[in-house]
Parts: sequence; C-alpha cells; structure tokens
Amino acid sequence: MTDEEVILQESERIDDLLSHNLRIIQSDEVFSFSMDAVLLARFASVPKRGRVLDLCTGNGVVPILLTTRTQASLEGIEIQPRLADMARRSVQLNELDESIHIREGDLRDLVKETGHAVYDAITVNPPYMPLNGSDLKMNTHQAMARHEIGCTLEEVIQACNRLVRNGGKVSMVHRPQRLGEIISLMREYKLEPKRIRMVHPRAHLEANMVLIEAMKDGKPEVRMLPPLIVYNEQGSYCDEIMEIYYGQQDAERSKEGGN
Amino acid sequence: MTDEEVILQESERIDDLLSHNLRIIQSDEVFSFSMDAVLLARFASVPKRGRVLDLCTGNGVVPILLTTRTQASLEGIEIQPRLADMARRSVQLNELDESIHIREGDLRDLVKETGHAVYDAITVNPPYMPLNGSDLKMNTHQAMARHEIGCTLEEVIQACNRLVRNGGKVSMVHRPQRLGEIISLMREYKLEPKRIRMVHPRAHLEANMVLIEAMKDGKPEVRMLPPLIVYNEQGSYCDEIMEIYYGQQDAERSKEGGN
Repeated sequence: MTDEEVILQESERIDDLLSHNLRIIQSDEVFSFSMDAVLLARFASVPKRGRVLDLCTGNGVVPILLTTRTQASLEGIEIQPRLADMARRSVQLNELDESIHIREGDLRDLVKETGHAVYDAITVNPPYMPLNGSDLKMNTHQAMARHEIGCTLEEVIQACNRLVRNGGKVSMVHRPQRLGEIISLMREYKLEPKRIRMVHPRAHLEANMVLIEAMKDGKPEVRMLPPLIVYNEQGSYCDEIMEIYYGQQDAERSKEGGN
Repeated sequence: MTDEEVILQESERIDDLLSHNLRIIQSDEVFSFSMDAVLLARFASVPKRGRVLDLCTGNGVVPILLTTRTQASLEGIEIQPRLADMARRSVQLNELDESIHIREGDLRDLVKETGHAVYDAITVNPPYMPLNGSDLKMNTHQAMARHEIGCTLEEVIQACNRLVRNGGKVSMVHRPQRLGEIISLMREYKLEPKRIRMVHPRAHLEANMVLIEAMKDGKPEVRMLPPLIVYNEQGSYCDEIMEIYYGQQDAERSKEGGN
C-alpha cells in the first residue's frame, strides 16, 4: 500500500522505521514510539515460528519491527480503540496483514478468548508510571500509554504468566526505578528473570532504561548483559545503537543500489 | 603493632591493603580476600558515626577498610573460629581495637545477643554458591566461605532484616546470577533495593559481580548506577579501579614524601 492509499486521521503522519523500508503511522497528540520500543524489538528472544504476542502494543511498532526477525505469527493487543486502529492501518500500510493481527481489548481479559499458555513469547512496553495521584494533565491517550490507568504492573505480569507457555519467554522494557518491583512480581508469577540489560545514556551516567527477559518456570539464574551505552563521549550514537537503528537499512540500501 | 609482634599461624602471611598503610593477615589455604570485598567497602553507604556490622566478615577485610571512611563503631561476625581469630589479629596488627570488634558466632543467633534493629548499616559478602550437592573438594574453611554451608542467602537477608534499624542500609556484594533471588528475598524481608551497581570485567562482557544496597522499609525506587568496568581495552585497570585500589595510597605516599 502506498502512503497515499492509507487513510490518516487528524494529526497523524507516516514515519520511516529505518529498517526494511517499514513505515508507521504516528501522532504526537496520540502516540508515537520511542527508543524503548526499538530496543525491546531487538532485545527480545523470539522463536522463528510459533505465536508471539505484544501487550500494550500502542501503534504496533514492536510487532511491525519483529517481522524483520521472525516468521512467527504476531499479535498485538491494545486497549485504546484509537491506537488499535492506528496499529491496524500501519499493518496494512506495510502489507503485513498476514503476519500481524491487532486485537482491540483489555489484556486482563485476553486469556478468556485465547486460553492459557498459548504463546511462545510475549513482549511488552507497559506504562511506566504508577498511578499515585500524580499530574495527569496530558490527554487521555498519552496518559494511558504512560501511566498505569488501564492496568497495573502486576496485572501485566499476571497476564504474561497466564498467556505464555512453560519455557516461553517474556521480554519487557521499563524504567530501572521499577526493577525491584518487576523482579519480585515476575518471580511471584513464575516468570524467572534470565537476561537483563541496562541502557545508559552515557557510560558514566545511571541507567534510564532496563530490558529484562524472563522464562516461564525457568531456573533462577540471571545473566547481566554488557551495558548498552546510547551516546559516546562526542555526543553521537554509539556503534551498537547506530547498527540497531540504521544497520539494516544501510544493508538494504547497498543491496538496492543506493535507493 | 609491627609485623614481627603479631603471631602468625601456619600458612599465614601479612599483605598490604594499599590504603592508609593498612595490613591484613591472609592465607591461601584458609581465607584471602578478593576484589569483591574491596568494592563492597567502597560502595556501601556508611554513617559517619553509629554502629556498622559486617556479616560473614572472614579475615575482617571489610571493617578494616571501612575505618578509612567512617568513625562509626564497627563490628564483624564470623562463624569460623579460625577466621575470627585471623580477623582479631589483623585488627590488632592495625591497632584498630578501639574501632573494630570481631565476634565469633552464628549470624542466625546474633539478634539474641544484640536485640533487634540496633545497627545503622550492615555490609555482607556472603558465600556465593548454593549448596546443591556440587563438589566440595575444597578444605572446609574455603568451602564455608564460598558455599551456603553455614547459612543460606535467605538466612543472611533475614538476619539483616532483624539487625538493621528502620531506614538503615544493607549493602551486599554477590554474583549477578543470583540477582533475581536476592531482590525478591530482600523485598520479602522489607529491605528495599535502592542502589545497584554492576561490575563488568570489560565493557563488552557480562557482569561478574553485583553491588546492591537496600534500605529497611524504604520506598520502592532503585537507582542503577553507571557500570563499573574493571579492565580497559588495553587490559589495564580502568581509572576508577586504580583509584579504589591505589588512589589513597598514592595520596598518602605523596604526603609522606615517597615512602
């Protein structure tokens, strides 16, 4: 589908995902993805085939990026109708209707539709901030994506516990501040942390993002991966970030002769 | 006390702690400290005054190093009589008898002697390996220092919970593999992780040590500190490690005119 054929709502635009010519519908007023989603889509262990679910999928950025890494059947669930609709149109825009199915609904109810333990892997970029009477002056779409309005961290982890099969993987991106809660909730729900990667804006600064992968019914043993540093001392992206953002596009470009 | 005045047992030697002219009695057959203890003694938040306890103190390296950072009353507890004796002689060697009190005993029983919540801060470098029938061909002294023979991770954390006051700090060094268990046990025993630092042998390698500090009855919010990298790309110690190991000695040396 060309950019002209897709129907854009007010305030929406089409952005380039910089990888495999993928594009995505975004809106500063409603939802636009951040580096967190891109790093999660690269970090998560996904099976080559099988079923993969993305919770809190927003505009569908994670499953769309995952199509470059797996042939699995991908599903995304989003509670906000406006965002689920954006995600569906982004899937159509990329002609990925056969790989990605977007559900509009509440992750707390999903197991009733799908049954227990049906997914091989789950990814999730949940709202980061607990709902503690803090200022919610943002519009509702952004507030729901950022604050635990539609679901709490515990409800997200409980849903993962129900939906993933034994031995399956659950990958999450979150703020390091919440790491204590995340780890104890995951273990309470039989999701054993196996790989953790800290993301630091610069080598000498505290982490501002954490990537964590757990295995359902796994043995307790965590690997702490090398730190991912975003900017080097000169203030440019470090090589690994460049490769994650632009690497595949460059490879594509050279194959295509510089388009 | 001079090196000649202290009584050394078989296989023991006196090593230089490279900081403030501190010395320590070690033995390859019984116990010698590693980088873990040095990093813990630097990482831990200790009050300027008050009472600080080091669990599993071994040859007393952590309280001896802590004398360079605090005027607090320092105590160490060690279950192995042979090691507690080494620790006491190291304290005498450094003429620190007024600052450090070494107890020989079981940390599980300590609360009966001291009462609850009497310490302002606790440090601990516990045995790293669970006792799961793995090979224990080492001699008993080393086996007890490395394996959970005398106490389990949960018993260590339970002892911290009982002994530290509300708002007091508990600092631990451990293997990253155990981080999931450590965090969920700490939170179960009302010790909320507040600062975590990963130690990586090199920038591109997984962490092989974790420093973690919790606050009794703290609010759940963790800071993930910048990674501590031990060796640079040339294979020499990074600046921060140099400073931790040699920094203070160099400062002392220059004051003393190059001794």
